[in-house]
Amino acid sequence: MTFFSSRWVPRPAHVQERTKGLPGGFRAAGVACGIKPDGARDLGLLVCDAPDAVSAARYTRSGVLAAPVIVSRDRCDGEHLRAVVANSGNANAVTGSEGIDAVTATQLATERLTAIASDQVAVGSTGVIGVQLPVDRIVSGLEVAHAELRADGEADFAEAIRTTDVSAKQASLTVTLPSGEVRLSAQAKGAGMISPNYATMLCFVQTDAVLDAETADLLLGVTVRRSFDRISVDGQLSTNDTVILIASGASGVVVAPESDDELALGEALDALLRQLALMIVHDGEGARRIGRVVVQGEDPERVERAARAIANSPLVKAALHGGDPNWGRIAQALGGALTDHAPLVFDVAIEGVQVCSAGEPLRFDASALEQAVQVDEVEYHVALAGEGAETEVFFSDLSHEYVTINADYTT
Amino acid sequence: MTFFSSRWVPRPAHVQERTKGLPGGFRAAGVACGIKPDGARDLGLLVCDAPDAVSAARYTRSGVLAAPVIVSRDRCDGEHLRAVVANSGNANAVTGSEGIDAVTATQLATERLTAIASDQVAVGSTGVIGVQLPVDRIVSGLEVAHAELRADGEADFAEAIRTTDVSAKQASLTVTLPSGEVRLSAQAKGAGMISPNYATMLCFVQTDAVLDAETADLLLGVTVRRSFDRISVDGQLSTNDTVILIASGASGVVVAPESDDELALGEALDALLRQLALMIVHDGEGARRIGRVVVQGEDPERVERAARAIANSPLVKAALHGGDPNWGRIAQALGGALTDHAPLVFDVAIEGVQVCSAGEPLRFDASALEQAVQVDEVEYHVALAGEGAETEVFFSDLSHEYVTINADYTT
Repeated sequence: MTFFSSRWVPRPAHVQERTKGLPGGFRAAGVACGIKPDGARDLGLLVCDAPDAVSAARYTRSGVLAAPVIVSRDRCDGEHLRAVVANSGNANAVTGSEGIDAVTATQLATERLTAIASDQVAVGSTGVIGVQLPVDRIVSGLEVAHAELRADGEADFAEAIRTTDVSAKQASLTVTLPSGEVRLSAQAKGAGMISPNYATMLCFVQTDAVLDAETADLLLGVTVRRSFDRISVDGQLSTNDTVILIASGASGVVVAPESDDELALGEALDALLRQLALMIVHDGEGARRIGRVVVQGEDPERVERAARAIANSPLVKAALHGGDPNWGRIAQALGGALTDHAPLVFDVAIEGVQVCSAGEPLRFDASALEQAVQVDEVEYHVALAGEGAETEVFFSDLSHEYVTINADYTT
Repeated sequence: MTFFSSRWVPRPAHVQERTKGLPGGFRAAGVACGIKPDGARDLGLLVCDAPDAVSAARYTRSGVLAAPVIVSRDRCDGEHLRAVVANSGNANAVTGSEGIDAVTATQLATERLTAIASDQVAVGSTGVIGVQLPVDRIVSGLEVAHAELRADGEADFAEAIRTTDVSAKQASLTVTLPSGEVRLSAQAKGAGMISPNYATMLCFVQTDAVLDAETADLLLGVTVRRSFDRISVDGQLSTNDTVILIASGASGVVVAPESDDELALGEALDALLRQLALMIVHDGEGARRIGRVVVQGEDPERVERAARAIANSPLVKAALHGGDPNWGRIAQALGGALTDHAPLVFDVAIEGVQVCSAGEPLRFDASALEQAVQVDEVEYHVALAGEGAETEVFFSDLSHEYVTINADYTT
């Protein structure tokens, strides 16, 4: 039971980990349909058997939208999604009308198999951009997946949506609400092309709580902003990012708007998504360490810009990787981000050790600090002038493995 | 004679390379003063013996300015600089008032040795940020450097300003203007922390042409915008970037404003700075290949944003490194940069092979294209909708060596 492994995500007292199993009303499967050349699982199917399920979703804000994002976002009934088809190995992005047709064919095939209306079938894809999806393999694969649907199929499903992920990312939780016990599960993928913006990967969340569509949307929106919006592996926004929450209502436990139940479920969802987000950053295509930078100041826009610049700086990331407390890199990234207000006055602390105050270097025990950063999770605090705004970004380091993985991806 | 080695910078017919030697009126030296722990040269001194020399300069626009930038930009007579002191191994950035005092002490020591007024002494520094400069070593080193000043000391000077540069970057040229022959030389450093913004490294340029200050400023401004402003190694803007042009007038050849001489000198300076800029990108902390991305469209701001996003994308850079013509990375970077106009319509060509038209993938000979990108310099063309705006950015790839160099820089 080690899902909540980060120093930054304590397990809420009312949340217990389960070894496996989807919430009531859900079944899932993951199969190999032949997109990945190595024969690994590459097609996941998730269905909700409750006809009155409600859902909420968040998508990438990239200017280049993959076909499955266009269709799922614009042509589906976003409040009543009941199935998810997700493939890895091909993003179905920049594929024009043929790509759109492939998504539609996938939805129709799912409708034939499951009797779930095609506009309640969301599609997610991840993998190489600019190559047409082999839709025949998807359609054939869906038959196999449909036959394998199981109430504990979430591990296979999570496996099927991996690309460069070192490990599958998923959890099954029991959440004790004031009004009763509900279950919550999620499967995520993501390792590169992750920027702190909206839903920057694929993540599918299920609960058997009874939610109305507005509550589902509110809970997902708030928790995505605190999790997947706050991570960066490489500052790159994907064409395919998708997060979908489906509530089956099978538990019969009603989570009313603005109730203590809503608050408690929100806390559980928050912890779940933040831990999944951190697993993505930890995975981070070869990452050894991850960092958390907290920036405080007066203007929220400047604070956000500074935090992202630090988190996305390859120099900061490389220093994190090397266990090098080179805070000059933080100063450099800050100056590059905030070019309009020279000279900047700022404080920097690493792992609680103040290294720079009001733009001047402080004396500190360099070897002690170097020891302190030889950990998996390193904290940076930056204070700009003024008060009232604060943000955080979690980021991976820049490793040799990142280069190896990304230098030769299509070939 | 291989200075003009890039496909993108043909040698102008009126420009000849020289093996060595500064233009008339200049002397330079480079010595080891003890900043670099390995005893390598780390202090350069350049002087112009002409009392009526004119100069022009460009500095970083980072919000965090190094002490030498603050002093050289704000407290010197920028039109009449006659000496440059440049050190490597320490950036003297984020060093507060002690850092400013170190620059002033450096200027005064130079004035004592050379009789050049301290406000005509520019100072440049490069190296680690946030560590106080050992100013005593600089002052002692200046005495040695002063004694070694030579008319062909530019190679030692160029050597002294290197940090992680694989090789020193400098050239000496003879330029045949309509009104006579002048000489032009430059020494540059830069390998990382290079972003396409103003003068993103150190570069010192000398000519013996007779220029007025306005012409010097115009020529430097235009050519910096076409060279150092258009390169990116890692998208990181330095705290220390400095470009200084000094004209001694020793040739007696007058370059009048808006004359053919001005045009011809401008062409030579343009080629010189573009080639030096490309050498910085080629050096690029372990770079194997460099890319040039040309983006066309309607809106200059969007065209610029797209070109920089592509040039700075670690995914695009890693694919360049791997010799992988994965144009999906270009599409992804484009979408991440231009989030406000979905859906984007665009064409992509790599090495003249059209791979994407109006957002749809084209059939092309993948193995031929893969062969075509196994070269040192790779061209990418992106066309957004509309016409009238075009820009280019030169960028290095993302290599294992970049990680190695930057993971363990201070320690």
